[in-house]
Amino acid sequence: MLKLYYAPGTCALASHIALEEAGAHYETVRLSFKTEDQKKPEYLKINPKARVPSLLTDHGVLSETPALLLYIAQTHPAAKLAPLDDPFELARVQAINSYLCSTVHVAHAHRMRGYRWTDDAAAIESMKKKVPQTVGECFALIEREMFEGPWVMGASYTICDPYLFTLSQWLGADGVDIEKTPKIADHFKRMSERPAVRKAVADETQLQSAA
Amino acid sequence: MLKLYYAPGTCALASHIALEEAGAHYETVRLSFKTEDQKKPEYLKINPKARVPSLLTDHGVLSETPALLLYIAQTHPAAKLAPLDDPFELARVQAINSYLCSTVHVAHAHRMRGYRWTDDAAAIESMKKKVPQTVGECFALIEREMFEGPWVMGASYTICDPYLFTLSQWLGADGVDIEKTPKIADHFKRMSERPAVRKAVADETQLQSAA
Repeated sequence: MLKLYYAPGTCALASHIALEEAGAHYETVRLSFKTEDQKKPEYLKINPKARVPSLLTDHGVLSETPALLLYIAQTHPAAKLAPLDDPFELARVQAINSYLCSTVHVAHAHRMRGYRWTDDAAAIESMKKKVPQTVGECFALIEREMFEGPWVMGASYTICDPYLFTLSQWLGADGVDIEKTPKIADHFKRMSERPAVRKAVADETQLQSAA
Repeated sequence: MLKLYYAPGTCALASHIALEEAGAHYETVRLSFKTEDQKKPEYLKINPKARVPSLLTDHGVLSETPALLLYIAQTHPAAKLAPLDDPFELARVQAINSYLCSTVHVAHAHRMRGYRWTDDAAAIESMKKKVPQTVGECFALIEREMFEGPWVMGASYTICDPYLFTLSQWLGADGVDIEKTPKIADHFKRMSERPAVRKAVADETQLQSAA
């Protein structure tokens, strides 16, 4: 049985959606960042980085979204969530997910988590100001150079799709108008209507309201 | 024939080393960041992100270090650079490389490339000040929680090793004493002595001197 540790409003949603798409047998454990559950000793034993997501498997714990997504795809091959038999296409998937992880998510993080990289309050404020530009430039590049359509990688839905959807959710709060990237806006809308996405989002929202 | 686009002193070295370790048939193309080769129209056609590394293959271009490393390992299975037949262990490799890419490299980048995330000169200076702490904490975490020894993943040398080595190279300039993480310091020393590492480093240094 897989167990996904997540916090609402985080990139863990991408793995949550992928587990649903894969038809995986899994359960979830909700952490609250408000009460800093991710820094509590019992969670640090699971993930010493104090981050989400973490995925508890029969073999041990995994972390980092691109790794979880690849693992879910590889262990549920019938769901065809990645081009597992084509090293070049699989590397393209990993390239997209690496970019989302190391450039796009990082650009976004400068709005809420600038304290990671400076102790100066004025610097943190100045970082926030640039987020609409940096995140907007990332999405413009994805729209122009990476997004194949109708899915990120082209005709086939892959593990890139829930990850892009998860970051697209944050665009409004990041000060970026999703309509400026019409292909991604359309992708976001189509993703929102998928049963797996609705199920994962509803689970996270419901638990959040109940907390 | 593979073609690796790199710039000296960048994370492209990790892929360069991996190509050597794999015994790959490849050539390299050196870019100079000083003359901003990465922003020139001919390179933007190869990599519109204006970053290195890029790997030109018979199927097209790949970017992002974790993707290149996985591709090199998958297409050169005899070199055994990753646990390709074990989804859990392969995901662990990807988790390490994702962390190096999205947290460690990003922490480091705030020393030289703070302009990516703010337009304010004072904020850029304040970011530089925190780099010894943030990069130091990343390496302390790797030493304590991730590094299995003698190689990153344990008994087998993998694509995590050239990537960690590449980031370890920057510790001095980042204001971090590598000796505070003795396992990583020992890894760095052993890596430096490997023929593949010496070859890749010499190639990049030689070309740099000649430029």
